[in-house]
Formats: sequence, C-alpha cells, structure tokens
Amino acid sequence: MTGPSRSPLRGVTVIDLGQIYNGPYAGFLLAMAGADVIKVEPLEGEPLRKRGGQNLSLALAMLNSNKRDIAINLKHPEGKALLIELTKGADILLENYAPGVLDRLGVGAAVLQAANPRLIYASGTGYGLSGPDRDNLAMDLTVQAVGGIMSINGPPDGPPMKAGLALCDFLGGVHLYAAIATALYERSVTGTGRVVEVAMQEAVYPALATNLTSLHNNGGRQPPRTGNNHPAGTSAPYNVYPAKDGHIAIICVREEHWHNLLRAIGQEESKDDPRFADQWTRAKNREAVDALVAGWTVHLPKQEAFARLQAQHVPAAPVRDLVEVTNDAHMHARGMLNWVDHPALGRVVLPHSPLRFHGETRPALNPSPELGAHTRAILMEKLGLDASAIDNLVRAGVVGEGG
Amino acid sequence: MTGPSRSPLRGVTVIDLGQIYNGPYAGFLLAMAGADVIKVEPLEGEPLRKRGGQNLSLALAMLNSNKRDIAINLKHPEGKALLIELTKGADILLENYAPGVLDRLGVGAAVLQAANPRLIYASGTGYGLSGPDRDNLAMDLTVQAVGGIMSINGPPDGPPMKAGLALCDFLGGVHLYAAIATALYERSVTGTGRVVEVAMQEAVYPALATNLTSLHNNGGRQPPRTGNNHPAGTSAPYNVYPAKDGHIAIICVREEHWHNLLRAIGQEESKDDPRFADQWTRAKNREAVDALVAGWTVHLPKQEAFARLQAQHVPAAPVRDLVEVTNDAHMHARGMLNWVDHPALGRVVLPHSPLRFHGETRPALNPSPELGAHTRAILMEKLGLDASAIDNLVRAGVVGEGG
Repeated sequence: MTGPSRSPLRGVTVIDLGQIYNGPYAGFLLAMAGADVIKVEPLEGEPLRKRGGQNLSLALAMLNSNKRDIAINLKHPEGKALLIELTKGADILLENYAPGVLDRLGVGAAVLQAANPRLIYASGTGYGLSGPDRDNLAMDLTVQAVGGIMSINGPPDGPPMKAGLALCDFLGGVHLYAAIATALYERSVTGTGRVVEVAMQEAVYPALATNLTSLHNNGGRQPPRTGNNHPAGTSAPYNVYPAKDGHIAIICVREEHWHNLLRAIGQEESKDDPRFADQWTRAKNREAVDALVAGWTVHLPKQEAFARLQAQHVPAAPVRDLVEVTNDAHMHARGMLNWVDHPALGRVVLPHSPLRFHGETRPALNPSPELGAHTRAILMEKLGLDASAIDNLVRAGVVGEGG
Repeated sequence: MTGPSRSPLRGVTVIDLGQIYNGPYAGFLLAMAGADVIKVEPLEGEPLRKRGGQNLSLALAMLNSNKRDIAINLKHPEGKALLIELTKGADILLENYAPGVLDRLGVGAAVLQAANPRLIYASGTGYGLSGPDRDNLAMDLTVQAVGGIMSINGPPDGPPMKAGLALCDFLGGVHLYAAIATALYERSVTGTGRVVEVAMQEAVYPALATNLTSLHNNGGRQPPRTGNNHPAGTSAPYNVYPAKDGHIAIICVREEHWHNLLRAIGQEESKDDPRFADQWTRAKNREAVDALVAGWTVHLPKQEAFARLQAQHVPAAPVRDLVEVTNDAHMHARGMLNWVDHPALGRVVLPHSPLRFHGETRPALNPSPELGAHTRAILMEKLGLDASAIDNLVRAGVVGEGG
C-alpha cells in the first residue's frame, strides 16, 4: 500500500493541559499521529507525577511519549498571559479539569477563542459541561459505579465489581481525541474552531450494548451477573476453562464451531447428544457442556490447547497475564510495543498508538519529558522571549525549568 | 458558546460494511456527527440482525441510528460492481471483516482506492492486518483473554474473569472512528485518502496503564487480582461498600478527602488514629478502614449516603443498575439518552453520540433502518438507476429490498 509518508497531523500544534489518564491519552494519540504536543504542567507537576512517590509512574511514561513539556503557574497573572499567547499560535487546547476550573482561572474557552477563533477547545470531564450532575466529583471508580459498569461485572454470587482497568478514563480519552480530530476536519471546511466535549459517563454507555440488550429482553429487569458466562446466557460453550498451566477462553458462535470443537477434543459422538442439539439447548445445559470441554482443557497447557483448537477453526485464546502481553511477539513485530530506554525508568515496554495509517513512516517513540524540560525552548521558539526575560519568569515563579 | 449550527461531518459520505459492534459503532459516531452513512448488508442481514431470533436486538438499534440501509450480495459480480460504483462517490469505506476477506471478494482497499484515490479505507480487526497473529479468530471474548484484561479482572480468590461488557469491540470501534476522522483531516491537506486500521488488541493495551504500572512496581511479577480494591493496593478507602439498598463506591485521593469522610460519618476522632495516618498506612490497614466506612454506609440508602458524602466533598457514587442508568435524569437532560419509538422495538432508550460539538444543532435521532430499507432510493440517488434496472437487480439476487 503506497501513500504519503508524512504523519497525518504534521503541522498541528496542541496545548495539552491533560492530567492523569483521560486528557493525556488524547494528547498521546495526537502526538503519535504527528502533532506538536506541548504538555503544560503546574510548577509542581501534574498529579500523576507524584503518584509513584520517588519513582516515576510507568503510566506517565506510557501516556506522554513524543510530547514536549513546559511548566507554567496558571495562578500567576503572567502565567495566564503566557498560556493565552501560546494558544494564539495553537490549533488545539485540551484539558480534563473539572467543569469551570479554567473559566475561573480566566483562561477558559471564551477567553481563548476570542483571542484565536480557529482554536479547538476540548474538554474531558466525568459528566459533561452541563446538566444536573455536572459538578459531581468524577474519577474512574465513581464513573464505573454510577455508569452501570459495576452492576454487570464480577461473579454471579458476589457484590457488584469494578472492572480491573481504568476503562472510563480511556474510553473518555479516545472519544476526546475523536471529537478533536472531527473538529480539525470541520475547521478545514469552515475555518472556525469549536468547543468539543466528552463526558466519561456518556463514553461508556454504548459499550454496555450487550448488557442493555439482555435487560431489554428480560422485560426491563436486570439479569444477574454472569461472570465468565455469556451476558445473556444464550450461548455455550462460552467460558474460561482451566488448563494445566492457566486458563483458556473458548466460544462457539456458529454450529460449525461446535462441531469443530468436538472433533478437536475427540468427542465427535456428542454431536448427536440431544443436550447439545443447538446453541439454545446447549446454553440450557451449560454445566454439561462446560464439563465436557473442561475435561479436555484441564490436561493440556493453555498454548497447546489453543493450538489444537485453532487448527480446527474454533474461536479460542489463552488467558495471558501482563508479562506475556508486554512481551507479545505479534505486537512487537507490528511496532505497537517497543523496548525503550527511558531516562527515568530504565528499559521498559512502551506502546505506540493504536491508530495506524498505511504508508506513513511512523514517528519514532521519544520517552516522556521531565517536568519543564522544554520550558525555555518553547518560550523562545513560540513567543520569541530571550534568555533574560525567561530568567525573570523563572525567578518570579511564573514558569519552571526541569532537566 | 456561539458557533456554526451545521454538523461537523455534513457532506461526508460513508459506506459502512460494519457488523456486530466494532465497525457499526464507528459508523454510528460518523452518522451522529452528520455524515451520510450507508449501511451495506448482505441479503440475509448482518449477523447482529439474527442474534435476537425473532426479535430485533436492542444493540442493533443502539448502533445503527441515523444510517440508511442497502442490501447487496457481494458474492455476485454485479453486487461487487455496485459497491465499487458506490465507493467512487464516497469519502469513507469502513469494514470489520477478518483480514483479507474483502480482498478475496475483489473489493479490497487496492481496488477501491484505484477507482477513488480520495477514498479513506478503514479496517477494524482483532489483531491487525499484519504480524504473525493476524489471522487468529478474534471476538471480544478472545481479545479480552489474550490482551490481558481477564488477568486483572475479578475477585482475588477466583479465576481470571472477563470484563462484563464488550470493551474490546467498543475500544476498537471508537479508535477506528478516530483514525477515520484523522484521515479526513489529513485529506483536506493532501487531497489523498489512506488505508487506516485499528486492532482491538492494540486498542485495549493503553487502558491497562494502572495495571502495567503495578506490574512494573512489583519487579515485573504480576500482582494478584484485587477485585474492588485499588489495583496497586496503595490507597484506602478505595472500595465498594454495602448500603441498605445496594452499594456505594468511595475513594479518597487526597488527605483532605479522608478528613472530609471522617466528618461525614461522624468519626472525627479517628483522624489521630495512627493506623490511618496517611494513604500508605491506611492501605496497609485496609480492613480496619473498610470496617469503619462500611459500619456507616450499611445503615443508609445508597443515595442518602452519597448525598451526605457529596456535601462534604468526598468522591463517591452510588452503584447503579442498568435500569437506573437508562433512566438517568442527567443524561436525558443532556440529550445523550432519548426515549424513542422504534418501529421494531417499541418505546426504548437510545443513545446519541458521546462526541459533543458546541454550537451544533444536533441531528435528531432516527431509528435504525430495516434491512434494505433504502436500497431503491440509494441506487437511484447515487447511481442514477431507474426503477426497472433496480427490479432486475432484485430479481437476479444482486440486491435486496426491505420495508
């Protein structure tokens, strides 16, 4: 596949006020697509810098590759003025502070877009910039609770359980990127920027499609949690089965998969067992189905069971732990995962972007910057300040320098 | 906030070959941002149409609002020719078939972009279009297994557990939309389309940031699953607590939150308890912390407990079930959720898009079309066919008409 080798967002400048996961992930996707992303942090650093105590959080390194970094005190009048000047030359400002925080600081969307009508102002929040719950405190955990995720996650006999990953933050963050990219396209037509916003609570709702379908089919009453079984209880085999050295997930979508599975496990005579006649009947006799399958998987290493099922075209996958995932040969071969010598962390695996543009020579992965590492360079390059002016700003506590 | 009232993707035409969740969600986001999205289905309908047996799946209605629908037999030479003609006038073709399927049908990216170099061709798959695992069978369940999600989800004393929602499909789908919007912007600069692709396995990796950080901080050995506790075990309170009528999630990020919590629950004397001196000490004495908090929550309805904690600025949220979520006054007030009279389903709640563009008059929500509902209209409008030509195509089994 041929095509231009430039990155799609080359020439786009981003002011990234993101913190923790949500905003920074949007900024990360922008940076890896070729934008010049300037991460703006308070003089003491964004909250994620402090999470690891003395050690830099790996998460900070994962989400801030290929960004430059400037430390600005936005509570100082001169700091606000610097931010406004920087956004005048920018295409995008993104932030995930609570609603109204930047407005109260005097650097909200209205001020910034008055100075630069082409600016796209992007806000990521828990509940959005309007509505009765706007000001509820939002973290991944609370959005999982109020958004319905906990109600459908976990084993049938236990309490509601949060999903083990920060999915509200990340579903919110990638939607925020999506809104930004859309507004960039629109600006190419209209010449004008937009305020775009994404609420984490809204970003997770569509992902509940299976569960909401079960609710609907159950007459509007919520079915019990189903753990590793199908959320609607209408499919078997559909489970995580024990292997000699771990677990393997197996799912039969079509009848053909079931017949293939019986061949793989040497149980072809069960093809005519009336308990297993079709998907619906098997789902009703789930325990017998699972016993049959587990009786085979439990004697094999998960990779061996997977290989045998794959050879028969049965959808299956070994359950892998994070050590296996970070060393995944496939994702390393594709350049999604990379061994990087990070100045603060040593040799670690860091991701590139899940967005892939054929024909592009992908930007090399640059480790996340230290706090304020590019303060001086950015103020010179973008605002034309000279060394003594910058010295004065540092002394006055308006900006901070790292490195 | 003033701004143009047109939708950002007005004038953009999309051929949506998506099926089930991943592709259709990308198409849904395009439709709700104002694009003209033409859903192309096989004559028998896409797989999700058949999932509910006689009843339409609510998921199909959730993901196909505001699309038009044409049924084309892509195994018929004339069907292929029709698809190629349609894409000549389109900006985007998206699909989430397994790698190589459309190439083998003769309507892959190379053929379509040769006919229309401005076409953006978007592929959503489990593992991507390259690499050793490219052809592994991918469903949400198998990607959760192999992608590491199951390894960090579930209670500490149980097996690895899939997350209760189809998060690989949806993280994949929104990333696919993101890649498409990026390529649309790029095309406004270069004039040329791209092949863009997203692998579900790659789309979920960054969302494991907290868990990968725990792995790193634990010397590269995977820590045990933590259920409702903090994934790194470094924070308390951080849990789901029992209430009189359900559960409530509570998290204290800063010391101030802990002091506020003690005030809210009438335990201010515990402020000086050495077991609770700071976040780290509390995490070590998690059971005592949780007993103190649960001793208060268990006597209150979850909404009442939430109101009292919120009044003291403690991050908390009631754990809500899907009935509560679909009736959420906040999301209804914001127009994210809408009561819609769906022709096939009756009165149901359907989502608008999580992408919000200030100043836009959002498109009204049009219920998902029947299979082939717009076959005739689209063939007339886009390809200029007359009634008898379309009759012939229907008779020859090249296209199907619904409604």
